[in-house]
Amino acid sequence: MKDHMKALIKEGRTQGFSLNEVEVPRDLGPNDVLVKVLRASICGTDVHIFSWDEWSQKRIKPPQIVGHEFFGEVVDIGNNVSSVAIGDAVTAETHIPCGKCLQCRTGRMHICKDLKILGVDIDGVFAEYVRVPEVVLWKLDPSIPKDFASVMEPFGNAVHSCAPFDMRGMRVLITGAGPIGAFSVGLSKLYGASLVIVTELNETRKNLARKMGADIVLDPRQNDVLSSVLRLTDGDGADILLEMSGNESALIQGLSCLTNGGIASILGVYPSSVTMDINSLLTFKGITLYAITGRKMFETWQTSSALLRHNRIDITPVITHVFPFEKWQDAMQTMMSGDSGKIILNLE
Amino acid sequence: MKDHMKALIKEGRTQGFSLNEVEVPRDLGPNDVLVKVLRASICGTDVHIFSWDEWSQKRIKPPQIVGHEFFGEVVDIGNNVSSVAIGDAVTAETHIPCGKCLQCRTGRMHICKDLKILGVDIDGVFAEYVRVPEVVLWKLDPSIPKDFASVMEPFGNAVHSCAPFDMRGMRVLITGAGPIGAFSVGLSKLYGASLVIVTELNETRKNLARKMGADIVLDPRQNDVLSSVLRLTDGDGADILLEMSGNESALIQGLSCLTNGGIASILGVYPSSVTMDINSLLTFKGITLYAITGRKMFETWQTSSALLRHNRIDITPVITHVFPFEKWQDAMQTMMSGDSGKIILNLE
Amino acid sequence: MKDHMKALIKEGRTQGFSLNEVEVPRDLGPNDVLVKVLRASICGTDVHIFSWDEWSQKRIKPPQIVGHEFFGEVVDIGNNVSSVAIGDAVTAETHIPCGKCLQCRTGRMHICKDLKILGVDIDGVFAEYVRVPEVVLWKLDPSIPKDFASVMEPFGNAVHSCAPFDMRGMRVLITGAGPIGAFSVGLSKLYGASLVIVTELNETRKNLARKMGADIVLDPRQNDVLSSVLRLTDGDGADILLEMSGNESALIQGLSCLTNGGIASILGVYPSSVTMDINSLLTFKGITLYAITGRKMFETWQTSSALLRHNRIDITPVITHVFPFEKWQDAMQTMMSGDSGKIILNLE
Amino acid sequence: MKDHMKALIKEGRTQGFSLNEVEVPRDLGPNDVLVKVLRASICGTDVHIFSWDEWSQKRIKPPQIVGHEFFGEVVDIGNNVSSVAIGDAVTAETHIPCGKCLQCRTGRMHICKDLKILGVDIDGVFAEYVRVPEVVLWKLDPSIPKDFASVMEPFGNAVHSCAPFDMRGMRVLITGAGPIGAFSVGLSKLYGASLVIVTELNETRKNLARKMGADIVLDPRQNDVLSSVLRLTDGDGADILLEMSGNESALIQGLSCLTNGGIASILGVYPSSVTMDINSLLTFKGITLYAITGRKMFETWQTSSALLRHNRIDITPVITHVFPFEKWQDAMQTMMSGDSGKIILNLE
Repeated sequence: MKDHMKALIKEGRTQGFSLNEVEVPRDLGPNDVLVKVLRASICGTDVHIFSWDEWSQKRIKPPQIVGHEFFGEVVDIGNNVSSVAIGDAVTAETHIPCGKCLQCRTGRMHICKDLKILGVDIDGVFAEYVRVPEVVLWKLDPSIPKDFASVMEPFGNAVHSCAPFDMRGMRVLITGAGPIGAFSVGLSKLYGASLVIVTELNETRKNLARKMGADIVLDPRQNDVLSSVLRLTDGDGADILLEMSGNESALIQGLSCLTNGGIASILGVYPSSVTMDINSLLTFKGITLYAITGRKMFETWQTSSALLRHNRIDITPVITHVFPFEKWQDAMQTMMSGDSGKIILNLE
Repeated sequence: MKDHMKALIKEGRTQGFSLNEVEVPRDLGPNDVLVKVLRASICGTDVHIFSWDEWSQKRIKPPQIVGHEFFGEVVDIGNNVSSVAIGDAVTAETHIPCGKCLQCRTGRMHICKDLKILGVDIDGVFAEYVRVPEVVLWKLDPSIPKDFASVMEPFGNAVHSCAPFDMRGMRVLITGAGPIGAFSVGLSKLYGASLVIVTELNETRKNLARKMGADIVLDPRQNDVLSSVLRLTDGDGADILLEMSGNESALIQGLSCLTNGGIASILGVYPSSVTMDINSLLTFKGITLYAITGRKMFETWQTSSALLRHNRIDITPVITHVFPFEKWQDAMQTMMSGDSGKIILNLE
Repeated sequence: MKDHMKALIKEGRTQGFSLNEVEVPRDLGPNDVLVKVLRASICGTDVHIFSWDEWSQKRIKPPQIVGHEFFGEVVDIGNNVSSVAIGDAVTAETHIPCGKCLQCRTGRMHICKDLKILGVDIDGVFAEYVRVPEVVLWKLDPSIPKDFASVMEPFGNAVHSCAPFDMRGMRVLITGAGPIGAFSVGLSKLYGASLVIVTELNETRKNLARKMGADIVLDPRQNDVLSSVLRLTDGDGADILLEMSGNESALIQGLSCLTNGGIASILGVYPSSVTMDINSLLTFKGITLYAITGRKMFETWQTSSALLRHNRIDITPVITHVFPFEKWQDAMQTMMSGDSGKIILNLE
Repeated sequence: MKDHMKALIKEGRTQGFSLNEVEVPRDLGPNDVLVKVLRASICGTDVHIFSWDEWSQKRIKPPQIVGHEFFGEVVDIGNNVSSVAIGDAVTAETHIPCGKCLQCRTGRMHICKDLKILGVDIDGVFAEYVRVPEVVLWKLDPSIPKDFASVMEPFGNAVHSCAPFDMRGMRVLITGAGPIGAFSVGLSKLYGASLVIVTELNETRKNLARKMGADIVLDPRQNDVLSSVLRLTDGDGADILLEMSGNESALIQGLSCLTNGGIASILGVYPSSVTMDINSLLTFKGITLYAITGRKMFETWQTSSALLRHNRIDITPVITHVFPFEKWQDAMQTMMSGDSGKIILNLE
């Protein structure tokens, strides 16, 4: 193995990334694993860090290798590692749990009270090699395509968002058809939803939703969403809301479209506080609301792997672009245009 | 049976009630039941109607007999009634379902899309006799004390608020110790909570909470609630929040006290819209929120009956006053002072 | 409407049925509904009654109109009926609940302690008209094909058998591919199972399973089922067993194929007591077992309707034969050959 | 620390144990922890090994230090251990998971496909020191009494047996009041059961059940259990069965006492295969059956700790005997008499 590698780095406290030559991380702790990165994909979080927004300024401590979604191959392991071996095809959960808190000890590592995030709190995967703790690694069946493997982390967000409730025969409203919303469209259909309605503004994403199986795509600027949903659901409203947009008015509109006893799953992150009439939107309707973060370790990964490996869902439409690693600037630019699904960097 | 009866009536579109002589309702439909009221209890809703607030002005159509919480005895039945007989001791669910909507047909009558409320939409129980549809009647074992039977509707709110989740070994925060909050304190202890913390401002209600078994009662004016809760829970925060106050800051504070993966059950009704940071209060912590209305028909009533009948919970402390029906004005005044738990009108 | 109708009747305490002319049931109680039968389908129970087996001899009191699966149109209603109207397209739950027991009052009418069964305890649907209590009627969207509507009762058995647990990404073993097993194959795929393995002996039914989407069909006479299942599931075993055969050795084999923590759903009815090693088959593996009867009223019907109406599952392959009512003898003979899926009688 | 220690050993392939002087285990792997044992308690499994029964002959490979229930203090840790420190008060889960199988990776280590059991597959805790892998250690709040800490493993069996379902307001039948049955009595009351009925033959254990709060104790030799249960439950039958006896007829009788829709939790291990009428005992009643093994890691331990630490349950009556370690022969003899609850060995 070579000593140096290319890595995309947040160098200083300003906008932008740099593609630098840095040392391959070699000092593996007893539970560390060194992975050769073959694919990586870009997340909205990477855009935040690139743009150096308020959140990044508080959280990121440059210099830092960025990126967290990836697929790769194990090339070295610490001397206490036993669950993966050199040569294994792997991806990883990007939320690194402490292993000691109440949540970690009771099957809920994804809401660990002392989480570290790959590519945010420690060096990330936009590099030829990455050092990852054994606990977050997930071994993959070789039949899963590399590009699919690379996006299993955001796909897992969708899987997890749908997990707490039954979707069989249900009428599902999905607000927002970015990559995770689009994955959720496909999952809702796969999971037996009787009807999947999507709201979205962006044309590229409307198409993503349609390709993933949406029965109806509404544009809130052109459609009265509430009356459309009522009409499509015998006057009941939707049984389930998947809020994937992070947009306050989409959230309020989505909740107002729920039928009594409906379920809301919220993955969207909002730019600021939300004002809502809890009485009429939630209480008088007896709504249950699941606020979703991360992916269950490793129930979500197990489900995701099983579905992808047995070809139960085709996520090809969501992967709209693949760039060679060197073309990372084009990739970031495409990402920021909003006219994309998942964008993959190929490091092979 | 006599032809006329005393009844507490909202006569016109102004503040107040009148105790009038009116006809006993005799025109029973095939599924109607006539009940002689022996006990009735006062709810906050009755105060709203008395005060003729904004909500009442929209909802109530005087003249109208008010009141919905009661205990009584069946004195006549419609010719299609088969589940109760003359002489049966009964109370009733106060939310009258349509029986035909999706919710009613799938075991969720409490969130019927076309609910009518006793004493709100149709004549109520602050009267010597009341006509009630068979579907909402609940027969009682004679061993349940009459005063307890009268408050089974609000007691059921507490039972229902706790129902969707497991409380065993959990650390529970209850914000607000009015009657339903106080019932919830007792239920939390009964259901195996390891620690019950209450926040309340009113001295009478603080005492109610203590008498029902609260381990700690905090006054948000004197205690830093968040740091107290963290200290009492090994730094974790509460596992469960029961929001019983209808106060926005109590809700926000309560949610901020939840540990990651915590559960919030919201019964409180808020005077206006609530503004909150969904990301940090709900999403990043992976919170599940149950918005609660009414009582499940009749799972909640079955549980409530079983607990009261087998003396698994003593709700005596929550019943702070009993007045003869004629003293209804004293009862309303005590109710409006805030220094009470449940107040009962004795019609025997 | 005419006064007399053709009806298939169990006349006496011997083998066989007779197609007789009898009076149309006209004495509707206040909650009764008269339905003109347009389609009916044959169940194994009808075969038991035809054959006059031990169970029938104890349960059936001839003369009795038989049959319980049907589709029809409301032609008259009792004077207290409000949820259906003349002209409505309907099918019905065949288990008639008492409405008064604990189970009926707590959302579990399907396990009523005093159930009556249509075509078993009261006159059934193999007739031009049938009188049915309002409580079991289920109104249908006209877009659901009549043949599908007729088999919604056994389809509902399959929907109910899958209902208590999550099938997403799961590896499902279905023992027995009669009509309900075959429906379950389609449902498992629809609900996101990653792999559906079926065991079956009969060639017609093996084909049913394949047409409904089975990934693998094993014949226990030719395959070592346990080792096949282990090989197909990375050595884990199946996550879920749907026991649809009513065969003891299929049950034992199915349970032995489950992975630790697996789930078994048992709909099969066994000819006699079953002997099994509970320790190794259930306890040491931490298995959860759901014993299934009937269909939830009306959660199961709501799900079934939603799936059929929105074309989420095509059950055409399971309906192998349609006979005109007059050819009922051919229909019964085909049914008894075992080489069929569902057989429909057309009364139009 | 000294080099040698006293340990109770299964020396050869015959009946009995020996108290020998052996070396303190010093060769700690990176994730091993050395614990000084302060209390240990005797399980039925230890009696099996002592008696050298069929199961033991297959499973145990002498020489072997026996025992698995204990409380102690950490005295040394391997160099990769981070979740406990020297001086910590600990007990441990006795089922040691592999950490790599599907079950271990999806929050179900208690049903690991490659479990090793302390004192069965590796050296146990009836010794002054024991080497235990970090993954199974559970740190304790010092307020939990040492004797209680020692029996948290079987107490956890009871906690786990009750965990999968709601007991609030339920009528619970517990068949068998050995230590785990007796713990379950107390837990059922704590968890809000409205009525707890116990069946037991042994007088000592009948008293244990009563002391732990049983409402009714039936002796199947003197009482008609089914008719008694029906009489005590308004003719319904029990809502929940906890089968804790490992006796076939208790299981069958218990299941026959369940009401429709009831729940059975089975912890008992049966001496041989069980024959039962699945149709009438399970299927036609729509029963759900949970087969229970071990304890969830570490949800069960967290619940148990919370309940004991906050004095929500007093398990003193179940601990009937404490012997100094040297008196282990008296302890084993008392254990084998059947006239005991938990028996503790004090090693301090």
